[in-house]
Amino acid sequence: MIVILKEGAPKDHVNHLLNDLTQLGLKTDVIKGEHKQIITLIGDTTKVDIENLMARQVVENVRRVSEPYKAANRKFHPDDTIITVGNQKIGQGYFTVMSGPCSVETEEQIVEVAERVKAAGANFLRGGAFKPRTSPYSFQGLGATGLELLLKAKKATGLQIVTEIMSLRDIDLFADVDIIQVGARNMQNFELLKELGHCNKPILLKRGLANTIEEWLMSAEYIMAGGNTNVIMCERGIRTYETMTRNTLDISAVPLLKQVSHLPVIVDPSHATGLTSLVKPLSKAAIAAGADGVMIEVHNCPSKALSDGAQSLTPDQFDNVMESIKRQLEFEGKTLLKA
Amino acid sequence: MIVILKEGAPKDHVNHLLNDLTQLGLKTDVIKGEHKQIITLIGDTTKVDIENLMARQVVENVRRVSEPYKAANRKFHPDDTIITVGNQKIGQGYFTVMSGPCSVETEEQIVEVAERVKAAGANFLRGGAFKPRTSPYSFQGLGATGLELLLKAKKATGLQIVTEIMSLRDIDLFADVDIIQVGARNMQNFELLKELGHCNKPILLKRGLANTIEEWLMSAEYIMAGGNTNVIMCERGIRTYETMTRNTLDISAVPLLKQVSHLPVIVDPSHATGLTSLVKPLSKAAIAAGADGVMIEVHNCPSKALSDGAQSLTPDQFDNVMESIKRQLEFEGKTLLKA
Amino acid sequence: MIVILKEGAPKDHVNHLLNDLTQLGLKTDVIKGEHKQIITLIGDTTKVDIENLMARQVVENVRRVSEPYKAANRKFHPDDTIITVGNQKIGQGYFTVMSGPCSVETEEQIVEVAERVKAAGANFLRGGAFKPRTSPYSFQGLGATGLELLLKAKKATGLQIVTEIMSLRDIDLFADVDIIQVGARNMQNFELLKELGHCNKPILLKRGLANTIEEWLMSAEYIMAGGNTNVIMCERGIRTYETMTRNTLDISAVPLLKQVSHLPVIVDPSHATGLTSLVKPLSKAAIAAGADGVMIEVHNCPSKALSDGAQSLTPDQFDNVMESIKRQLEFEGKTLLKA
Amino acid sequence: MIVILKEGAPKDHVNHLLNDLTQLGLKTDVIKGEHKQIITLIGDTTKVDIENLMARQVVENVRRVSEPYKAANRKFHPDDTIITVGNQKIGQGYFTVMSGPCSVETEEQIVEVAERVKAAGANFLRGGAFKPRTSPYSFQGLGATGLELLLKAKKATGLQIVTEIMSLRDIDLFADVDIIQVGARNMQNFELLKELGHCNKPILLKRGLANTIEEWLMSAEYIMAGGNTNVIMCERGIRTYETMTRNTLDISAVPLLKQVSHLPVIVDPSHATGLTSLVKPLSKAAIAAGADGVMIEVHNCPSKALSDGAQSLTPDQFDNVMESIKRQLEFEGKTLLKA
Repeated sequence: MIVILKEGAPKDHVNHLLNDLTQLGLKTDVIKGEHKQIITLIGDTTKVDIENLMARQVVENVRRVSEPYKAANRKFHPDDTIITVGNQKIGQGYFTVMSGPCSVETEEQIVEVAERVKAAGANFLRGGAFKPRTSPYSFQGLGATGLELLLKAKKATGLQIVTEIMSLRDIDLFADVDIIQVGARNMQNFELLKELGHCNKPILLKRGLANTIEEWLMSAEYIMAGGNTNVIMCERGIRTYETMTRNTLDISAVPLLKQVSHLPVIVDPSHATGLTSLVKPLSKAAIAAGADGVMIEVHNCPSKALSDGAQSLTPDQFDNVMESIKRQLEFEGKTLLKA
Repeated sequence: MIVILKEGAPKDHVNHLLNDLTQLGLKTDVIKGEHKQIITLIGDTTKVDIENLMARQVVENVRRVSEPYKAANRKFHPDDTIITVGNQKIGQGYFTVMSGPCSVETEEQIVEVAERVKAAGANFLRGGAFKPRTSPYSFQGLGATGLELLLKAKKATGLQIVTEIMSLRDIDLFADVDIIQVGARNMQNFELLKELGHCNKPILLKRGLANTIEEWLMSAEYIMAGGNTNVIMCERGIRTYETMTRNTLDISAVPLLKQVSHLPVIVDPSHATGLTSLVKPLSKAAIAAGADGVMIEVHNCPSKALSDGAQSLTPDQFDNVMESIKRQLEFEGKTLLKA
Repeated sequence: MIVILKEGAPKDHVNHLLNDLTQLGLKTDVIKGEHKQIITLIGDTTKVDIENLMARQVVENVRRVSEPYKAANRKFHPDDTIITVGNQKIGQGYFTVMSGPCSVETEEQIVEVAERVKAAGANFLRGGAFKPRTSPYSFQGLGATGLELLLKAKKATGLQIVTEIMSLRDIDLFADVDIIQVGARNMQNFELLKELGHCNKPILLKRGLANTIEEWLMSAEYIMAGGNTNVIMCERGIRTYETMTRNTLDISAVPLLKQVSHLPVIVDPSHATGLTSLVKPLSKAAIAAGADGVMIEVHNCPSKALSDGAQSLTPDQFDNVMESIKRQLEFEGKTLLKA
Repeated sequence: MIVILKEGAPKDHVNHLLNDLTQLGLKTDVIKGEHKQIITLIGDTTKVDIENLMARQVVENVRRVSEPYKAANRKFHPDDTIITVGNQKIGQGYFTVMSGPCSVETEEQIVEVAERVKAAGANFLRGGAFKPRTSPYSFQGLGATGLELLLKAKKATGLQIVTEIMSLRDIDLFADVDIIQVGARNMQNFELLKELGHCNKPILLKRGLANTIEEWLMSAEYIMAGGNTNVIMCERGIRTYETMTRNTLDISAVPLLKQVSHLPVIVDPSHATGLTSLVKPLSKAAIAAGADGVMIEVHNCPSKALSDGAQSLTPDQFDNVMESIKRQLEFEGKTLLKA
């Protein structure tokens, strides 16, 4: 860590600062430049509070040299993490396809979709019971009833379930859910993350719309710091000025995360752009970039979808996308386990 | 609301769609263009689910003509809302200054800061007990103890309290807090917003880092839909590519909100830029743009601040800023009530 | 095109507006909503000046239904454009690899790189003679001398040349250049685009750092409107808040452009992220997403590179990337012609 | 400047790098951390090419400690620059109001607007002769004829002229223009900037839509490096995800620029938001934040405006805005000279 001092910083203030830093167990060096002085800090700087440091009147800026994340850092865990969920594996050569409707609506709907996506090759069923909606006047999901319907679909097909949690108050309701999803809007709901750190289920952590890759890793760190190391990262598009797509898929995040972290990374092309016509090319791009899975919205009757229909494929369209995905996985030597 | 149909949309699908829309109580008109057809919808479109509509195979795009917010809409509430909190008022000519440290640390600290900011003219004490921190390894705030210290400072000075809630589980702890703050990261924590809609305290709703003004108003709508109409909007900077400031203060949001909504709007120049040297000019800009208040970080000993120190003024610096603010409020004919 | 009128727009003003619109040869319809009226316009709206329309006191907003681009629009040119450059083809199944150093430095350097990238399979040599640099104190390129060195490398290897133009004053110097590149910073240098519209060389049009896909197509339209329809679009990353990569590669732009336009689209993974370790995964992602080519920086001695070295591969690294690219092109059934 | 080395960087490579840096006249120090080594550079680092440094295989990252701009840096020129243009002054207490239509259309129009804005108190006439338009099918300005009309308006009113240049080919046409404007889209048209560095006219440099404050200062540096130190910075909004305003006015840029640079800074509220209703509050905010002027669009008949009408005030609306501006300038103790 490097601390840049303000010009003309009084000697006694600087000494005071150096003293405090030494007491934190850090080795310090002072370099005097033409205009500015800098202090270099050596030791475990993960726990140094940058804002605290910047609060000192003599400090102009502070810059990290090492990454602030530890548990998620590949440097300390060189091997890929494989997440095992029942008979499924995610990561290090095991590819996953999570599919299903944006919202769970009826038993008939969810079972039918589950059957279709399973037949096409998906190995997890996704579906929203609790729905984060911009407007309080929009359909908010079936809630606990939706979770029950998902479990019925699981029973009918054997597909394990991925579904989103919106409040730590609901955590007990998720006892039979296989993978708990944290949505983009809750990526920095730190109280929820802490709670999930104490449960023993895999967490699918979606990237926030305006969050950096480093912040995203720090949110994974919140979960892992609690003891739950089963975190799956999901890139789902970030907010930019572009308006032709709903969000901008940050495809570079995939190989970058694979380099700096050992956690599995999947891509959600449906939410990333909001356009069904882009699901196939972006799923292929995700595989090519090294992703460990994709999450794709499929609806058995999009014209009646209660939410997010524009980005949902029909089962027939999904069959077509899955054929492409399977061919490419074979080319890349990746494994898609049967559900 | 305008529905743009895809080219070559089959007649029977279009008729089916028109039928469904009519059943929602909307009047429809079909306009045939050279390449595309559009449908115009007349009636209460607030409850129309745009994503639902876009799910129809024949629909290319949907565009609102009217605003999706009702309770917060000036059109239906032409007069400015004035929020009354104890002996204080916020809005329509009544300006508010909320000041205090980022984090509550000790009784001595918070009481001392409270005395200083009160003496300078602030009419609310702000301070963080529950702190949203990017890193799980950073100080997370004193929690319930912090709330107790804030109440001691209130008792000592008479300044009412503004502090942030991070989890709906904590809501009972906030019984004696005067204004509950929802932080930027929780602006779309909809479960929390719904809960706050059922309490009878004023809510300070900070804008999310990547949220549009419309989404921000929809979050106010979540609170107001529950019955709590005492919402204060707080612009605190949005995330852009600029790196010299921590965030970018969207000053235009102030006059724009005052035009489209009747809710009071305040500005937080401390968090918006992260630079103390910008607090004075941006506080002045906020007043000039029509803001109903400012929230300013002040710390009695910034060099020991446990969080966000770089943006905290010393009490002496705050005295200087308050002199400017008072002169400008007098010039603008706005009232700053004594605490 | 849809014109949304302000509430309470006076009848005579509206009639005046309708009259003007009719005189432009457009068919108008007026729809009266509960709060607002809208006018729908049918006919050739490409030439309607939206800002002009919005200037009318009675107009609240104007929304396009049809795209503002014509020459670049796939709707009017359903078949893919293939750009033929000497013995090379780009588009519709013909993939291109343009490689070389960021800056041309010496004859030895450029010839050596040209030989290496040709041997690896590249079919164009790229290299900067005129360099857009943020700082006036940085190396600005060899200029005309750099162009001469490129032509020497062309003579030595047979590789055709792609290089950037920075000023319309230099256009005669580019007489022997095979493809003229317009850099991101000049994407809306309209005077330059107009001039290039009158030359008969293929233009590689890079996307501006903050430009929408629609603006990018409109810049292609500037060139095509002048008669030069040989435009190759190059996605090279857009500016977002993410700091781990230099820019954010908008991979969705590739399939989206292929859908709405008939022009070839290539991807520059080197400039998009500024990280050599991402060049291979992002080149693969580009192919998977349907790109017609990639532009990759290669330098024979990156440690002495005068500009942009961090993103340059060594020739050995490039060999490795090309092996992946070739295998994937074979899998996708695309053709990479020999230079 | 700080150079962060990669882990495990070979000793001989590091020595080679140190040797090269020493030859640039820089003093180097090597600090060994637990995981990484850093090198600190002391001396004139303005000319160090960061990309060049980053090209070295052993270098992970490079961070500046000092600013890369010199001529525009307040550190080396502590006093405010005052730009003198005929009988007018801009900067250090002298406020300027530049007003007029987006496009020059007819002699009658421009003279009438000039008379009205002069009567209201503006001290410069702005108007576009060469217009940068997104679409080639939109009105492109009257060109040279437009410049002649502006000079007629100058003759009629005595108001000096500010107008935009779009191509270095046109520079001779601007011989009688008083202030040459560089538009946002040309902020990094470096060839144009170099040319303007050799002319002796004040340059109004608008900030690019996606450019950082540092890049903007570097573009000023391009002009100043050529000998022309008369540069006026103009903040006109940056591109963000917000859609309610056309761009987002970065008001913080005003006080920040005043701190780090000695150049005058003005604000263009018309282009920043595209909404006439925001011109008054944002002009006031600009003054409060310390701006040295504003540029405001005024049109004598907005309903016929050929471009950008939505953001143009009528002369009557401008009178009203000017009354506010004058009152506030008096309050702030700033001088608005008569034209």
